[in-house]
Amino acid sequence: MTTEVPEVSGGRRRPGRRPGRRPGSADTRGEILAAARRVFAEKGFDKATIRGIAREAGVDPALVHHYFDSKEGMFVAAMRLPMDPSEVLPLILSGPREEVGERLVRFILTITADPAAREPLLGLVRTAMVNEQAVGMVREFFTTAVLGRVAEALDVPPLRMQAAFAQLFGVVMTRYILRFEPLASADVEEIVALVGPTMQRYLAG
Amino acid sequence: MTTEVPEVSGGRRRPGRRPGRRPGSADTRGEILAAARRVFAEKGFDKATIRGIAREAGVDPALVHHYFDSKEGMFVAAMRLPMDPSEVLPLILSGPREEVGERLVRFILTITADPAAREPLLGLVRTAMVNEQAVGMVREFFTTAVLGRVAEALDVPPLRMQAAFAQLFGVVMTRYILRFEPLASADVEEIVALVGPTMQRYLAG
Repeated sequence: MTTEVPEVSGGRRRPGRRPGRRPGSADTRGEILAAARRVFAEKGFDKATIRGIAREAGVDPALVHHYFDSKEGMFVAAMRLPMDPSEVLPLILSGPREEVGERLVRFILTITADPAAREPLLGLVRTAMVNEQAVGMVREFFTTAVLGRVAEALDVPPLRMQAAFAQLFGVVMTRYILRFEPLASADVEEIVALVGPTMQRYLAG
Repeated sequence: MTTEVPEVSGGRRRPGRRPGRRPGSADTRGEILAAARRVFAEKGFDKATIRGIAREAGVDPALVHHYFDSKEGMFVAAMRLPMDPSEVLPLILSGPREEVGERLVRFILTITADPAAREPLLGLVRTAMVNEQAVGMVREFFTTAVLGRVAEALDVPPLRMQAAFAQLFGVVMTRYILRFEPLASADVEEIVALVGPTMQRYLAG
């Protein structure tokens, strides 16, 4: 299978890394990310820790913190996701409550309009469709770092939150993977007008 | 990759089939279905014909008609789908218009609750996620034989129809592939109550 997300299920630390390389080199950051991919795949998002990833990478946890503010930030970088939900969600959720559904639809469709941002995300979903380790990791990341955050900010019960997620997830899949017309070619604002009220009903109903 | 849908992209008619086998044997039906899978993968759903499938199988078109009433019925059998939309949709669409959203959600969740019915459908979706031939075939079958039929019966514009599809598709993916809780374990009627009004708004709004 072809996938844009390497190593989600695989590989141990490679032997023979040279000792004494300088902390702060591009190589160190890359090795931390490779270690993070292995640990996230093996433990899932919730049980992975910065300390455990540092151990897997053979570096001091302080060095991991030097590169990445949070476990979420590390997951985002390791999976090459287009944005860190802990950074963007507060902005989307802090505007007028009666338009939050529209803002979420517009944000997701605007981000995913760029193939360079979209492909790693679709790659992760494709992998999750066929790989149990990846699906666990994706499930935990989305429920903890994305849906949990929105649900808490807006006081939405989990099932409603997941119905809203399913609507947006379905739109992205139908637009970019199944490519049904006219949805695949529709203007962002046309979809916002159609799907925004659904999101609004789930999130603020 | 593991998939429950064999041969979507492949294989020519195998050589050396014994001549003179009796029409009407189980083997003949199986060979017609294998030929159908090859033709649907190669030509897509819209351009495939019963005549072309008969030619690929090396049998008379009348024999294909003997086994399968329609191209849709042959696609359903070839992909081992749980139901033929040309049979079930008229029943769902003919009830009270103000409850059609609920009926569709209930029907899809009831069908997919049975793993034996669900797995071939999920297998087809998994294959479509990573295979361009399969995605074309799936897209044409769903837009022509499912969405087109609903849209015509209810007089729904295509983009609304696809937003409704995206909602249900997203629910099935989130419930059975990503397995987010509580959606994965929720009662069918709880989901019907939550998602039915969304479907109703798209289909009858």
